[in-house]
Amino acid sequence: MKNIFIKGFLWLLVVQGAIGQQLKSPNQQLVMDFSLQNNGTPMYQLSFKGKMVIKPSKLGLELKNDAKSLLHDFMVVDTKNSTFDENWKPVWGEVATIRNHYNEMAVTLNQKGTDRQIVIRFRLFDDGLGFRYEFPSQKNLVYFTIKEEKTQFAMTGDHKAFWIAGDYDTQEYDYITSKLSEIRGLHKQAVTPNCSQTPFSETGVQTALMMKTADGLYLNLHEAALINYACMHLNLDDKNMVFESWLTPNANGDKGDMQAPGQTPWRTIMVSNDARQILASKMTLNLNEPCKIEDTSWIKPIKYAGVWWEMITGKSTWSYTNEFPSVQLGVTNFAQAKPNGTHGANTTNVKKYIDFASQNGIEGLLVEGWNVGWEDWFGHAKDYVFDFVTPYPDFDVKGIHQYAQSKGVKMIMHHETSGSTRNYERHLDKAFQFMNDNGYGAVKTGYVGNIVPVGDYHYSQFIVNHYQHVLEKAAQYHIMVNGHEAVRPTGICRTYPNLIGNEAARGTEYQAFGGSKPNHVTILPFTRLIGGPMDYTPGIFEMDMSKINPDNKSHVNATLANQLALYVTMYSPLQMVSDLPEHYNRFPDAFQFIKDVAVDWDESVYLEAEPGDYITVARKAKGSNNWFVGNVNGNYARTSSMVLSFLDTNKKYVATIYADAKDAHYKTNPQAYKIYKLEVTSKTNLAQYCAPGGGYAISITEKK
Amino acid sequence: MKNIFIKGFLWLLVVQGAIGQQLKSPNQQLVMDFSLQNNGTPMYQLSFKGKMVIKPSKLGLELKNDAKSLLHDFMVVDTKNSTFDENWKPVWGEVATIRNHYNEMAVTLNQKGTDRQIVIRFRLFDDGLGFRYEFPSQKNLVYFTIKEEKTQFAMTGDHKAFWIAGDYDTQEYDYITSKLSEIRGLHKQAVTPNCSQTPFSETGVQTALMMKTADGLYLNLHEAALINYACMHLNLDDKNMVFESWLTPNANGDKGDMQAPGQTPWRTIMVSNDARQILASKMTLNLNEPCKIEDTSWIKPIKYAGVWWEMITGKSTWSYTNEFPSVQLGVTNFAQAKPNGTHGANTTNVKKYIDFASQNGIEGLLVEGWNVGWEDWFGHAKDYVFDFVTPYPDFDVKGIHQYAQSKGVKMIMHHETSGSTRNYERHLDKAFQFMNDNGYGAVKTGYVGNIVPVGDYHYSQFIVNHYQHVLEKAAQYHIMVNGHEAVRPTGICRTYPNLIGNEAARGTEYQAFGGSKPNHVTILPFTRLIGGPMDYTPGIFEMDMSKINPDNKSHVNATLANQLALYVTMYSPLQMVSDLPEHYNRFPDAFQFIKDVAVDWDESVYLEAEPGDYITVARKAKGSNNWFVGNVNGNYARTSSMVLSFLDTNKKYVATIYADAKDAHYKTNPQAYKIYKLEVTSKTNLAQYCAPGGGYAISITEKK
Repeated sequence: MKNIFIKGFLWLLVVQGAIGQQLKSPNQQLVMDFSLQNNGTPMYQLSFKGKMVIKPSKLGLELKNDAKSLLHDFMVVDTKNSTFDENWKPVWGEVATIRNHYNEMAVTLNQKGTDRQIVIRFRLFDDGLGFRYEFPSQKNLVYFTIKEEKTQFAMTGDHKAFWIAGDYDTQEYDYITSKLSEIRGLHKQAVTPNCSQTPFSETGVQTALMMKTADGLYLNLHEAALINYACMHLNLDDKNMVFESWLTPNANGDKGDMQAPGQTPWRTIMVSNDARQILASKMTLNLNEPCKIEDTSWIKPIKYAGVWWEMITGKSTWSYTNEFPSVQLGVTNFAQAKPNGTHGANTTNVKKYIDFASQNGIEGLLVEGWNVGWEDWFGHAKDYVFDFVTPYPDFDVKGIHQYAQSKGVKMIMHHETSGSTRNYERHLDKAFQFMNDNGYGAVKTGYVGNIVPVGDYHYSQFIVNHYQHVLEKAAQYHIMVNGHEAVRPTGICRTYPNLIGNEAARGTEYQAFGGSKPNHVTILPFTRLIGGPMDYTPGIFEMDMSKINPDNKSHVNATLANQLALYVTMYSPLQMVSDLPEHYNRFPDAFQFIKDVAVDWDESVYLEAEPGDYITVARKAKGSNNWFVGNVNGNYARTSSMVLSFLDTNKKYVATIYADAKDAHYKTNPQAYKIYKLEVTSKTNLAQYCAPGGGYAISITEKK
Repeated sequence: MKNIFIKGFLWLLVVQGAIGQQLKSPNQQLVMDFSLQNNGTPMYQLSFKGKMVIKPSKLGLELKNDAKSLLHDFMVVDTKNSTFDENWKPVWGEVATIRNHYNEMAVTLNQKGTDRQIVIRFRLFDDGLGFRYEFPSQKNLVYFTIKEEKTQFAMTGDHKAFWIAGDYDTQEYDYITSKLSEIRGLHKQAVTPNCSQTPFSETGVQTALMMKTADGLYLNLHEAALINYACMHLNLDDKNMVFESWLTPNANGDKGDMQAPGQTPWRTIMVSNDARQILASKMTLNLNEPCKIEDTSWIKPIKYAGVWWEMITGKSTWSYTNEFPSVQLGVTNFAQAKPNGTHGANTTNVKKYIDFASQNGIEGLLVEGWNVGWEDWFGHAKDYVFDFVTPYPDFDVKGIHQYAQSKGVKMIMHHETSGSTRNYERHLDKAFQFMNDNGYGAVKTGYVGNIVPVGDYHYSQFIVNHYQHVLEKAAQYHIMVNGHEAVRPTGICRTYPNLIGNEAARGTEYQAFGGSKPNHVTILPFTRLIGGPMDYTPGIFEMDMSKINPDNKSHVNATLANQLALYVTMYSPLQMVSDLPEHYNRFPDAFQFIKDVAVDWDESVYLEAEPGDYITVARKAKGSNNWFVGNVNGNYARTSSMVLSFLDTNKKYVATIYADAKDAHYKTNPQAYKIYKLEVTSKTNLAQYCAPGGGYAISITEKK
């Protein structure tokens, strides 16, 4: 990880007045121009291969109780240019080595009348631009409150966008594909019900925002290294097609309490004429700080099963009893309560799952609903909702620990907070110690419902700081974190690789809550996954929810082959084996792929990609010569084709292909798949039929 | 403490319809009538010796998103009456044994149409009424949000009141004495500047509110057992002279998030025709739960000196360096910073104070400004403002610990939080462990500035819960707590006697910030001290602040004798010896009283009292036969007189009297005192001159 080499040079020039300054990407294809307007407003624009992709756009921050703010009257007092090029090795990832190569321009601006300085730092990579505001230590700018960040992204046209509604509290919306001009009209229907939601504007959208221009350019707007700052949304001026940053406020309506020295996160613009390049980009990771955890030996990618889908589908419950209108921890006597008979996290059931995991080489097991408090766990602004250490009477912590250990299965803890962040922080040390004591090396956190302290939001600076606090404290206890309902990731897993997963989008659970769009998984890698891996929880084999719970009429809008492919297309060091054991037992041949597929990789090759339509990726398993290919397909049947040129040229391989049958269809015939084997080489040209909402998975092993 | 005997009886009757119900105090002098209006609104009224003191007043709670709320349509479905009489022994206090004697009536109300039940529980003591709302466990009332509590206190006339402006964030206002009808006109001037303040209404006042009726009745409104609820203010309808409860909101503007089973704090109304009875009342303590700390052996009343007054007066500073515009913990290198030369908490200076305390039998020493972060410690909504464990380079924690220990002095820790409550909670365990490790048995907490999380208030339910969390966690570490800028006390020290002090009013520090009213200390015992002891920090001998710091033009509006008396009149198990050692050294004869005076008592006898004018109290030191008498006088000269009938009839005593000289005056001649000795018995009649803003102190020992 420390094998870092830097080829750098830097020079310094002082520019007088508002002369434009230009920065080019290492390959010269991206060009960023910085300038000041006549009134001293900082501006930037971006072009790709000579074509404008971001029109002249304003930069700055509006401050609270500060008429001049940090918006105009600036002069350039210093410009520093430099180049950076290094290779670094992530603790886990899609590739063994990541190149971080950019040209940088840091423009120091002085504000007339206030003598305040800010630095705007631009980093131009071959695959995109990152820039941020920095606030050096100085006398006239020490503490300040952001009323709004005023960073513009001026579009060159009415692009096609893959968007979800901007919201301070949830990211769990289905993506809508529309022209930018159509956002306003579609916004109301985009805001589907959620336990906690606060949309803010009829043209507000979330990042990562994926777009495609009329002339085939792919654009992606997001942020990197969201630390001690509010999560950024984008609000569209749909007359001029200009996006502007829209930060998540705190309870006062302020957007950020800042102290100099300090900085904002990076604002990122990925650009390519090849959609595969967007998926392959490591810019977000590169804009984050190197790993701050010294010993990372305890951080391990993992597949896991869970006592979970049975609750999601309504077959069983998180709660233990129906006896009380509400419960009070430390008061309610669960030991004497009448069990409801539907509690999933009971010792017998958990041991059944441990057996299943052990028998199939699945290393981890998550159990939800193990701890007291689920009877009335959300929607009440309840402060002391969970204590994270007290099991229900039918969950034998020690016994389960021993049993799991004897079977070689690692237990994964669940900490649902119900959004009550103070309560979680109060219990954090004891909860993590409890995990250490009972063999739990990873935690899935949850933030369902409105945030406590009330008035605050899931994505405000204060609550972003909470997630960071949990992550850093977990690292102290050698605990990996998989955060659900937390702020969407921005590459922080580079710095804290114990952040092995996040939800932060509409995951598989929505397939049991009414169903997601069949092409959902062809969009997520272009949007949600830009910031880091998602705990999407794939692997559903039984698509008819009523077979699990007669009251659940939902249908999983995917074919079985599509579900297999997700283990490859949805990159994550944490992959759930989500369905019920009995469903896997019905399809042992297909299940073999899930058993085989890796969770950590040395190489990744994006073979085909078009957001909303299809994604095909090949990955080489870490430390092996095995490859796995995944394809997810959108709403319409298609034939995927590729040359297996990623294979070693001098070797022969056997490919096992798990594909949609000809009559497969996500809705009408999702379980129609075929499995066949082929001898392949790097010259093999493969054409594979993909059903609507379908796809395929391939495992390739060297022939010996 | 467990010597409790209960003489109780209870009976049960079911009342049909809206028949009034009456409750009488044990001595029959107070009579409370409960009834329902025709629309089912609960009402109460209170009379004393046949004279109305609270006119018919409504009871109820307005709920959020609930049109009917808990306001009307009630029927009485059950009434339980009972009597309670016990004696209990406080861990520390004004008296060795407290009698808790009341008649109780618990009225269960059912709301028509909603089938919701509440209980209004009344406890009528000889010295006043307490009542609260209770929410039993039930199906139709589980979680609810209070929009406003609608408890009325209908006055019988335009009483004289001793009030401070209602405010969600500060209690540090000077008392105003006026008619109720004058509050509105005086309100603006009552709201003097504070670091954090949120007044809410032109007729809003705080509790404990002291009043006197035209016919000489004393009335006091406050609350008891403020746990998991918002602090109550009172808002006056000054047309009808009706006070109504006005709770402190959270960031959403809501007044409380409730769960049944649960209850509100007690609302208290003390009534007497003798002002001394108000001071002697133990009703607030009695309405709190018995002690919940099993082993209380580590809780000890204490006198303490402090590296404090020199910072308050501006002679020295809390901060260590002036080198940085702001500091960041973990980043700023204090070890290499240039010291400002004014830092009070340096080892040499601290050792000087340890010597002073040791030489004079003062058991404790507080040191403020010992830990890094004071350079920019408030006013910036700064989250990570202190870590509570990192000393400045010139404060030798271990060395000071050893030195203090060798001198028999107990160190008192200071934890200023700057209102950043989350940050404090994050560091609480480590901070308390650090105290345990370094010989600190008590902590003074501080909450200067606006609360973080922003949008919340010092007295909201959420932040009240924070103070309680700190108190309970401190108990786990055997740490005593003296909370400054926290919510005013409500008798919780009965339940958690490690709460040995609170500020929660305008303390002595304001004498160095421009001066308090000379009669301030004749009001505080009737208002602020109703809820519990105050860390008033008395004992100032040098009244001219410019002698300490030429830039400070403030004058302490008290005579030296008055300052001595405060150790007796301002009951507290924690008494500061506040002035600089060199000032005490100038007046060794007067200082003798401070050295002698006790901090824990077996008996207390209120001899004279009139709010705003004078208070005289005699107290018998715990486990001894020594008595101490204190008198504080208001704005005008007066002769105090008393018979020492509290002394044992068959004994002779020597009284040492520390009194104002004839020419003493708080403004022009504050240090004019005389000390003389007298032989006294229980029959001695003593008349003592008291200067404006003056008073006297007496120590009485048995003649042997």
